[in-house]
Amino acid sequence: MSDSIDHTLRGSWAPSGAGAAPLSAHAMRWLRQRIGLSEAPTPAVPPSLIDVSETALPQVVSSELVALLGENHVLTETGQRLGRAGGLSYGDLMRRRGGNGVAVPDAVVLPADPEQVQRVLELCARHDIAVVPFGGGTSVVGGVSSLRGGKVAVIVLDLARLNRLVSVDPVSHVAVLQGGMRAPDAEALLAAHGFTLGHFPQSFERATIGGFAATRSAGQASAGHGRFEGMVEGVRAATPVGEWRLGTAPASAAGPDLRQLAVGGEGALGVITEVALRVRPAPVHSRYEAVVLDGWQVGAEAVRTLAQSRTLADVTRLSDADETEVGFEFSGGMKARALRTLLRGRRMHEPCMLVLGWEAASRRELDERRDATLRALRRFRPVRLGGKVGESWRANRFSGPRQRDTLLDHGVCVETLETATHWAGLSELRSAVRAALLRTLEVDGRTPIVMCHVSHAYETGASLYFTVLAGRDQQDPLGQWQRAKQAATDAIVERTPGRAMGRGTLTHQHAVGTDHQPWLADEIGSVGVQVLTAAKKAVDPTGILNPGKLVDRWQEE
Amino acid sequence: MSDSIDHTLRGSWAPSGAGAAPLSAHAMRWLRQRIGLSEAPTPAVPPSLIDVSETALPQVVSSELVALLGENHVLTETGQRLGRAGGLSYGDLMRRRGGNGVAVPDAVVLPADPEQVQRVLELCARHDIAVVPFGGGTSVVGGVSSLRGGKVAVIVLDLARLNRLVSVDPVSHVAVLQGGMRAPDAEALLAAHGFTLGHFPQSFERATIGGFAATRSAGQASAGHGRFEGMVEGVRAATPVGEWRLGTAPASAAGPDLRQLAVGGEGALGVITEVALRVRPAPVHSRYEAVVLDGWQVGAEAVRTLAQSRTLADVTRLSDADETEVGFEFSGGMKARALRTLLRGRRMHEPCMLVLGWEAASRRELDERRDATLRALRRFRPVRLGGKVGESWRANRFSGPRQRDTLLDHGVCVETLETATHWAGLSELRSAVRAALLRTLEVDGRTPIVMCHVSHAYETGASLYFTVLAGRDQQDPLGQWQRAKQAATDAIVERTPGRAMGRGTLTHQHAVGTDHQPWLADEIGSVGVQVLTAAKKAVDPTGILNPGKLVDRWQEE
Repeated sequence: MSDSIDHTLRGSWAPSGAGAAPLSAHAMRWLRQRIGLSEAPTPAVPPSLIDVSETALPQVVSSELVALLGENHVLTETGQRLGRAGGLSYGDLMRRRGGNGVAVPDAVVLPADPEQVQRVLELCARHDIAVVPFGGGTSVVGGVSSLRGGKVAVIVLDLARLNRLVSVDPVSHVAVLQGGMRAPDAEALLAAHGFTLGHFPQSFERATIGGFAATRSAGQASAGHGRFEGMVEGVRAATPVGEWRLGTAPASAAGPDLRQLAVGGEGALGVITEVALRVRPAPVHSRYEAVVLDGWQVGAEAVRTLAQSRTLADVTRLSDADETEVGFEFSGGMKARALRTLLRGRRMHEPCMLVLGWEAASRRELDERRDATLRALRRFRPVRLGGKVGESWRANRFSGPRQRDTLLDHGVCVETLETATHWAGLSELRSAVRAALLRTLEVDGRTPIVMCHVSHAYETGASLYFTVLAGRDQQDPLGQWQRAKQAATDAIVERTPGRAMGRGTLTHQHAVGTDHQPWLADEIGSVGVQVLTAAKKAVDPTGILNPGKLVDRWQEE
Repeated sequence: MSDSIDHTLRGSWAPSGAGAAPLSAHAMRWLRQRIGLSEAPTPAVPPSLIDVSETALPQVVSSELVALLGENHVLTETGQRLGRAGGLSYGDLMRRRGGNGVAVPDAVVLPADPEQVQRVLELCARHDIAVVPFGGGTSVVGGVSSLRGGKVAVIVLDLARLNRLVSVDPVSHVAVLQGGMRAPDAEALLAAHGFTLGHFPQSFERATIGGFAATRSAGQASAGHGRFEGMVEGVRAATPVGEWRLGTAPASAAGPDLRQLAVGGEGALGVITEVALRVRPAPVHSRYEAVVLDGWQVGAEAVRTLAQSRTLADVTRLSDADETEVGFEFSGGMKARALRTLLRGRRMHEPCMLVLGWEAASRRELDERRDATLRALRRFRPVRLGGKVGESWRANRFSGPRQRDTLLDHGVCVETLETATHWAGLSELRSAVRAALLRTLEVDGRTPIVMCHVSHAYETGASLYFTVLAGRDQQDPLGQWQRAKQAATDAIVERTPGRAMGRGTLTHQHAVGTDHQPWLADEIGSVGVQVLTAAKKAVDPTGILNPGKLVDRWQEE
């Protein structure tokens, strides 16, 4: 079994030059049989044919930006603007493939440092120009769509040049990184000092430090290293009303933790230019392995036991039977058959794979932690597939997204959504979302594949991450997904009407962006909306920052 | 060694009926020699002699409150109003002892449930009456002072009747508790279900769940159980603009974590009526012990090593040499001599005591964790004092505050303050604060005792908790402490001008209240002040909630 499932499918990596990855012939045959595939591939429209209007940026603004940043850092050519036009949701990709309906910025600017970011915001505030902060561009919820919010023009503020490791404090284990630094560069620079962040979401190859912070990212190793917001010691952000610096200590009781307001602001409450982060000594020893448990209920109970006895592996990832099956098939026909035979022999009726990964500073620590995990798992009767399968998962954990273009070429509706809730309601919520997706994605009598995994377990609950593979509704491909998203999200937020506690959260790791806005009030209440709106007005009185995302409901004109 | 140090000194427990506790004759002799004591005790003025003005609550408001809550739950007698007049700072206690300058509320109301709390707020908003939410009344920063904020009257909203355990979810390990529940009651009710919160600040005996949440409390076992805000899964709060419910999952990426705004609101952003909390199985096994390390630097380095190798005991508490000495002397003359002899024999020049406490579900887990801690400590050459000293610390950890009245009677200036910072600057910050306190508290050539401990260690830094015992400036007792507080806090927040990261935080566990407000802008910046002010206006447009605390600078008329 090579690369497993959802990370097969997220995002189009093509723009970064990594290129699409093919699926095996067996996987294609199997998919054709299960959900149907287009007979002939339908590739994306080439960029030159995408409908892009002329830049609407007033000449005076353009001149001032050039004077501030230099000619090379104010980009207005069509290709450059297209390259930062939106993120990687199914809708984004389908619009880009089709060549129309793409919201394209009027210019892209590349400031060199936090001071220049601050001055760009002040300049844009003065001229009432909308600004979309842009890191890796990996948002799958419309978080970087170039919406104008009623302004005359919108620019993308690309943070690519803010890629410095500002400082490393080896005594306190704190590193200050600039917001535009890509995650792999951060890991490489920290490794030279013997440290790691340990944050590995599937977007790792392209995502940035500022993006992680602005969206409260969670990574594949969050069981061990915590969510990104938990690593944030301090934040430096530019806002139209001035610079904002927060964070003087690991913890404080000086009123509400405003770091947690700056973090999660999605570029609508400021542009994160620097982040002080807790780092850890880079692990010297690691071990990844896979076990199979019999059925979702047993698997979820096993992961709950690990979380509540604090014996989770740093990576703890449970796939349901559908996701496990797809993982088997995508790893090749022979492997799939061999695995099925093995598991039938061990009386596994509904195999659910659990990937476990430990990373540690010493062999002893690794062994002790691994022993504790496996000891706690014993009563759930796991079948151990061993280290090879686990290491293979690790080796391929970022490569999957490149296969997404191949699937899109072949007429597959491929998308993901996610939530989290408390353990007591987890399986019920999974069933409800699954039913909503199965019902709404069916086309021409072909049942879609709906997979689910838990990748983030807490003492009190866990995340649920759904990946769908469905035959595409050729008449209305965007509507097909929108209906599914609507039904699934309704199931998530409305599951227990009238009670805030015990429902699913609108999003556990993908953020709000444009796509989740219609449900935000369900999550935070009308008082929450008022508070967030007030905070937004305080830092961005004229609403130039990332219009239409998170808090406001402005629509693109 | 019995009860050790700072918890000897915090708060006057007398109002709750527990009564003052005497200090041993040896301790009194030792103190007299070190800092001087009044020859004759000067007890507090009896309540009947305290200057209390007539209630200013308009009759119409009083009638409406009685109609809403019933006659027995609207208290206007002088004694009842005095009983909720302010908290337990040195200033609060000295004013109360002297009998004048006490800000007394015009009435005390006791709603029965969250709905009644909501209606009280709406009623008070309608009549423009100030409301001070009141839990255990243990604030040491003026957080529950009955300030009017320019309103015609101020009432205390005592949450004592909101003392229900609303629900326990044994699968998710989540319990919903009402805001007015006292911590010991919460532990007792949860214990019946096999759970614990594990939150044991020194205020434990009187503090409430809502108070913990509203002030971002940290407890003595926070190394193991985390700070209180980290246990909060959900919040229900009443505000003048409506009820607010937050929290649907252990974690979310649905924008900023507004729970962290509700938590830490100090009654100025809403009244917390219910909190959903992560609970843990009550530990079956525990072990407390004490070791001594040679000097502050060695001690701090040892605790840093534990924190960064994640081998902290659940309770990890390092006292500096002064605090260790006071602890020895307060435990009795013979014990002090014996300990000094023992440690001299082991070539300890500057003994610093480290209390360690582990709590675990199984003997095996306890042994493994204790072994890991002690293994990591070995290279710091600890002298082990054994379990008896550790268990004695545990047994007495809440009893100390009762000794404070005895010290006040004998003319001692006794107070605490605290901060936190990153490891790299910890010792420098300790020296700076210590110097400021020693300089400002000296009276008539008598050097004060300034003690310090680390009770909360994180991977990136730690708290510093200072306790002072000084001869009282009889001419200007309040001014004496105010000057010391000013100098110490300036040292904390201004240590590294121009850099937000790397300074000390204004407060690690005591909150802002009135006393820390002058420095809040240093901590959160002018943008932070604008955001917090905007949030305050959104939930409390007319400013009736806890005037003069946290965010606004209104002064008592």
